[in-house]
Amino acid sequence: MNGRADGMAHVFPIRVYYEDTDCGGIVYYANYLKFAERARTELLRVAGVNQMEMTERYGMGFAVRSCAIDYRRPARLDDLVQVSSRLVKLTAATIEAAQDIRRGGDDLAHLDLRIVCVRRDGRPGRIPAPVRHALKPYLQSREHC
Amino acid sequence: MNGRADGMAHVFPIRVYYEDTDCGGIVYYANYLKFAERARTELLRVAGVNQMEMTERYGMGFAVRSCAIDYRRPARLDDLVQVSSRLVKLTAATIEAAQDIRRGGDDLAHLDLRIVCVRRDGRPGRIPAPVRHALKPYLQSREHC
Amino acid sequence: MNGRADGMAHVFPIRVYYEDTDCGGIVYYANYLKFAERARTELLRVAGVNQMEMTERYGMGFAVRSCAIDYRRPARLDDLVQVSSRLVKLTAATIEAAQDIRRGGDDLAHLDLRIVCVRRDGRPGRIPAPVRHALKPYLQSREHC
Amino acid sequence: MNGRADGMAHVFPIRVYYEDTDCGGIVYYANYLKFAERARTELLRVAGVNQMEMTERYGMGFAVRSCAIDYRRPARLDDLVQVSSRLVKLTAATIEAAQDIRRGGDDLAHLDLRIVCVRRDGRPGRIPAPVRHALKPYLQSREHC
Repeated sequence: MNGRADGMAHVFPIRVYYEDTDCGGIVYYANYLKFAERARTELLRVAGVNQMEMTERYGMGFAVRSCAIDYRRPARLDDLVQVSSRLVKLTAATIEAAQDIRRGGDDLAHLDLRIVCVRRDGRPGRIPAPVRHALKPYLQSREHC
Repeated sequence: MNGRADGMAHVFPIRVYYEDTDCGGIVYYANYLKFAERARTELLRVAGVNQMEMTERYGMGFAVRSCAIDYRRPARLDDLVQVSSRLVKLTAATIEAAQDIRRGGDDLAHLDLRIVCVRRDGRPGRIPAPVRHALKPYLQSREHC
Repeated sequence: MNGRADGMAHVFPIRVYYEDTDCGGIVYYANYLKFAERARTELLRVAGVNQMEMTERYGMGFAVRSCAIDYRRPARLDDLVQVSSRLVKLTAATIEAAQDIRRGGDDLAHLDLRIVCVRRDGRPGRIPAPVRHALKPYLQSREHC
Repeated sequence: MNGRADGMAHVFPIRVYYEDTDCGGIVYYANYLKFAERARTELLRVAGVNQMEMTERYGMGFAVRSCAIDYRRPARLDDLVQVSSRLVKLTAATIEAAQDIRRGGDDLAHLDLRIVCVRRDGRPGRIPAPVRHALKPYLQSREHC
């Protein structure tokens, strides 16, 4: 038994700038979704999946269908946060992902997302096989989160 | 007696501008949270609750603790969308709200939020009584959604 | 003779929300450009020019080539500001516009913009005649600003 | 003759994500100001100037008083752009900066900014001596731009 049924988590650092904050002195609640999207894009890039190429070659793209976010502690100006991204399920047409935004050892936010593969007209379609293959190493059993 | 134990829904119109869209041709997924926050602020304003005054007078503010959003159809440039906001639960220190973003008869997105009242130091606190009182007319039983 | 060779100024009200502010407690400097673009879009709409239709019918769109902004006083959360927009020059392929962002009698920011008409490939092109015609009433001599 | 009256230019790379683009398929015009502000913050950081510390220690901050931006070519999704920042003038209370946003050898945008040092109440004040000292190495004669 090797204990490594899990896939890889992808970790991406993000610096907090003025644009991210609001007059409450903390990062505005919608901007955590920007951070998470940057990190998912970088996971795809590391996996060899370029979204513009995917659109040009296959006529397919990814769209978020649902997103649940828990806000635990606020991020602030100048913070260097880490976004950890894992794929928890991969079907023919959907991806379930979990993302954690942390500042050092502090959990700041957790996101659960369902992402679908869509055609140019917005209707769902199958994830192109090479893309699914590229994403599999990042697939992680939910139990190990 | 007409069975209208339900409170009022607050409806706020929002126009979609270039800033809200992305190169996929639709409103960027994080920006629906901006629309929702504008509508909640206007609900508070109509209810007579000014958030800056609430901070100055009571040293309290509202913070989103969790937000779950379902994306059903995309909004596009120049769309005039309506954000309908309802309070589904009101306790001493928390508000649960449900919001729907629609374009005419089309459901575009639905949000469920848990909002807490926090002190200046970020710790939870009781919602000031006058604020709770002002919000009660917008309280709606979840069954009637 | 009344000395009113000037055209109309278009005035558009904008409310400041949390998303617009930063942790300095004021509206973030890039967001004044969002306010200005919303107001220019509304000027076009009032003039009968829909940018999506313009793209579909003529294959042309507007692009900002230069923008100079002076920041005079900051806008803050909950402010209701007015964006006043005037066209100061209209040539075959370019528009020069001036915009003022005010809060009541206070000048908050002034923008001077040069906007060009571009084809789908990004190269400059002539403003379609019906669009130029629709914009002329908003043309104002610079001397009267 | 040493030919090195010039100071250092600070170069900061920025990746373009979905959030930065609009439905025209290119980076939204206000977002170049975000890129520029991130780069100025990083120049300050490299120079040893932390803006939050500057506010806490001296009660002073920087505010943009004017910004003129020329848009030359558009940036697009997935582009990796470089923001080059130079200080062209440094007086007791103001900084003049020039910034170029490039993609490889292509000039995308150029910004000229006047930045003032302000007290907590918004009134101008002298740049603290240690901050001025830290910024001097980045001062560049305008002739050499």
